[in-house]
Amino acid sequence: MPDRPAEPNELAELRSRLAEIHDLRRAQEVLFWDQTVMMPPGGGPVRGAQLTTIDRIAHERFVVPEVGRLLDGLASYEESLDYDSDDASLIRTSRRDWEKARRVPADLAAEMVGAAAEAHDIWAKAREENDFASFLPHLERAVELKRRYIDCFEGYAEPYDVLLDDYEPGMKTAEVRAVFDELKASLVPLIAEVASSDEDDGFMRGPFPIDAQHETSLRVIERFGYDPQYFRLDLTVHPFAASSGTQDIRLTTRYTDNDLTSLFTAMHECGHGLYEHGISQTLERTPLCSGVSSALHESQSRLWENIVGRSRPFWNYFYPQVQAAFPDTLRDVEQDAFYRAINRVKPSYIRVDADEATYNLHVILRFELEQELIAGTIALADLPEAWNARFEQYLGIPIPSDTVGVLQDVHWSGGGFGYFPTYTLGNIVSVQIWDKVASELPDLPAQFEAGEFGELHAWLRSNLYVLGRKFTPQETLERVVGGQIDAKPYVRYLTEKLGALAAA
Amino acid sequence: MPDRPAEPNELAELRSRLAEIHDLRRAQEVLFWDQTVMMPPGGGPVRGAQLTTIDRIAHERFVVPEVGRLLDGLASYEESLDYDSDDASLIRTSRRDWEKARRVPADLAAEMVGAAAEAHDIWAKAREENDFASFLPHLERAVELKRRYIDCFEGYAEPYDVLLDDYEPGMKTAEVRAVFDELKASLVPLIAEVASSDEDDGFMRGPFPIDAQHETSLRVIERFGYDPQYFRLDLTVHPFAASSGTQDIRLTTRYTDNDLTSLFTAMHECGHGLYEHGISQTLERTPLCSGVSSALHESQSRLWENIVGRSRPFWNYFYPQVQAAFPDTLRDVEQDAFYRAINRVKPSYIRVDADEATYNLHVILRFELEQELIAGTIALADLPEAWNARFEQYLGIPIPSDTVGVLQDVHWSGGGFGYFPTYTLGNIVSVQIWDKVASELPDLPAQFEAGEFGELHAWLRSNLYVLGRKFTPQETLERVVGGQIDAKPYVRYLTEKLGALAAA
Repeated sequence: MPDRPAEPNELAELRSRLAEIHDLRRAQEVLFWDQTVMMPPGGGPVRGAQLTTIDRIAHERFVVPEVGRLLDGLASYEESLDYDSDDASLIRTSRRDWEKARRVPADLAAEMVGAAAEAHDIWAKAREENDFASFLPHLERAVELKRRYIDCFEGYAEPYDVLLDDYEPGMKTAEVRAVFDELKASLVPLIAEVASSDEDDGFMRGPFPIDAQHETSLRVIERFGYDPQYFRLDLTVHPFAASSGTQDIRLTTRYTDNDLTSLFTAMHECGHGLYEHGISQTLERTPLCSGVSSALHESQSRLWENIVGRSRPFWNYFYPQVQAAFPDTLRDVEQDAFYRAINRVKPSYIRVDADEATYNLHVILRFELEQELIAGTIALADLPEAWNARFEQYLGIPIPSDTVGVLQDVHWSGGGFGYFPTYTLGNIVSVQIWDKVASELPDLPAQFEAGEFGELHAWLRSNLYVLGRKFTPQETLERVVGGQIDAKPYVRYLTEKLGALAAA
Repeated sequence: MPDRPAEPNELAELRSRLAEIHDLRRAQEVLFWDQTVMMPPGGGPVRGAQLTTIDRIAHERFVVPEVGRLLDGLASYEESLDYDSDDASLIRTSRRDWEKARRVPADLAAEMVGAAAEAHDIWAKAREENDFASFLPHLERAVELKRRYIDCFEGYAEPYDVLLDDYEPGMKTAEVRAVFDELKASLVPLIAEVASSDEDDGFMRGPFPIDAQHETSLRVIERFGYDPQYFRLDLTVHPFAASSGTQDIRLTTRYTDNDLTSLFTAMHECGHGLYEHGISQTLERTPLCSGVSSALHESQSRLWENIVGRSRPFWNYFYPQVQAAFPDTLRDVEQDAFYRAINRVKPSYIRVDADEATYNLHVILRFELEQELIAGTIALADLPEAWNARFEQYLGIPIPSDTVGVLQDVHWSGGGFGYFPTYTLGNIVSVQIWDKVASELPDLPAQFEAGEFGELHAWLRSNLYVLGRKFTPQETLERVVGGQIDAKPYVRYLTEKLGALAAA
């Protein structure tokens, strides 16, 4: 046994404090889930106050100097530990979190929460009424608050780095720009080439009875690893996944009888859920017990939704079941026609409804505009014009109204600048991870055709999910795929898949 | 306008601190509801830790000396206020809460929580296996901890006063004893006189299809005031009511197809829910925003369940609907036979299944034994024997096993001594309140026959519910009925109702 100092008292004290803070954070998540999925409508105002209170208490208990002293006191013990150990990771990651969290004054944090809550309803009304002007002052305030937030930090190359870091710790704007430029250069011509006008896929508009959608969704995700001992699936307006701990995962979805989006929503949210469920139980009730970044999280939702769930082997197994579940609509539809319909590339206005390929151009557009907003190189009043011009340039169709243009997403109302790029980073990473799994497990397509997804799940779990937040996103990706983020595999994946479809 | 000092800064500070603590308490309640009603089974251990954390933080934030200083600083302002004002009530009630809460060391509180959690599963297994001996050491620990808890207080006439005060603040053991002795003296002979052997009511064993039970339950409680804007009704094993605030009330119930208990469970929990829903919204997010005591709460569940829900006028309206909901079972059953069946007095082993009259003897038995346990005048090992002897004396039937005897209830495993008496105090108070309403609104029976319960609800709301915890339970009862607790109206109610049934 190597010589190692005895565990210092500070470590137990740190663990205990962090466990309490984590308990509060997860309680917040359950209360948010409840608010969205279960709460009677009248409960809103009091629930808002409860969430604000828990958020403030969790923040206050973390940024106290005593946590800093404990971290300082543990520095030499940390050096004695294996870098990969849970304890070294806990100390290292918590120090980074603490140094970041304490830079933001409580007043500014509270003002940001308040402004976001106020702007949300204004934005929703503005979107409904195609009235950008009424949203403009709130957008101005959100941008102004974000600039003050950026001013709390120092040593960044670009202001946008600070925002990106909240969702993708350690990632720099310049890296994202390089990756996105490479992707865009391939994607714009590829989409122009493979985009189709409407073919004969009216069957995709249903009807698809909702009970059968629910049963089919469950049947699919149960094959992926959904287990009612640890998961729930409920209804909501804007689907998401949440968790109270690794053994309590809440997925949400929605059904409309005139499309089959719900199947892909269920697979997407299940991917998020499998990630959280697979984190090492030794990390339970620590700040390491969550996915490591937004992009890595999204890589898992997209891997299950798109790479698995829109693949031929998957449908070779599931199509007969889906056809049987919706006989009135799909009885006479060939599997190939169905496969082509769910992979159809067609530019459209709304990001969340976009196909696998054009989706990324929606994201790149937002990433570019966000940097200009924060830098002040674009006047906020001119934003719709800038949006519309760039949208037509990238996707080839003119925007008819701000409702389906600049006003479509909730993120900016809440000051969520920096989040959008992680969607496409997730797509890119999903293929890097997939390529790695596929090289190690060449039998996967045959397994999918037999309805077996356990080996894929086990690989992802032991190579990625189990790590939680022990390492940085960059370290994590390095461990999983042996390299850093790279757009090429994703470009190749799209080119091959969509090229084959266009050629056929 | 009377001369009144300006509102001191301490009041805003006190309100803000109490609001945060109340937010944590209500978050705890929602998380408990979620654990019981929604949580995937795997989530249990982490949820337990979350609840413990929130409980400890809420307690810590309340018992700090600063809260005491704020309360001291507000003493002269409080004197300048109307006794009935929200602010005077907030200061007065919080001072009482604070002086009580700070007497209990955090270690003892934590040990009690831990012991209760540990004992729960032991108790459940012991009950299942009729094995009192395996539960005995945990019961001994629970009693020992309660004695240490009692030692934190002083100035009480009897140790049991301390325990009672946790559920029925201000109530003394001697008062309960006097009331219960009076009730018992009337009840034992009354029950012996009216108790029936099985008559021809096999129809009460169903079948009653569960969907129809759910629809009927909702139909009934919607008449009482249940509104989906503010209420939910879900399934659980041991029904209860919870609330996140006055506008977010969670009722729970259970269904088995071989009885109609669910109708009464729904009315019972709805009574609890209407009380919480009716609290003045000016008290939201304050410690005054809850029912004033366990007995007053139970008076409302029992008023709606028994006084309304087992009355002839109620069934004159609802029986045809219930008959139509369960045609296979009730088609040929006369309303009078049904009414007699749901009011049948018949000694039985299990408290929660007991009829309206014998229920109270179950409670009095526990109240008497609890005092002896705490005083140490009975050896814990002799408890089953003492239980069985007294049960046969009061109810006339021998106990065949501890499973349906001393082990039947969860309360003692969690150290919940002092709770049981509030059930029967609730029954007693329910009739005092009913007599008062009925004297002011003589038309109520006719309204019930027409399916109208709004005037009853409005009276209870404006005379009781709205007050929350502004006054002590004794002050509250005085305001509602003009007097203190008194068993006579309840004895008269039971004697008249059951006498009429026996004579018919």
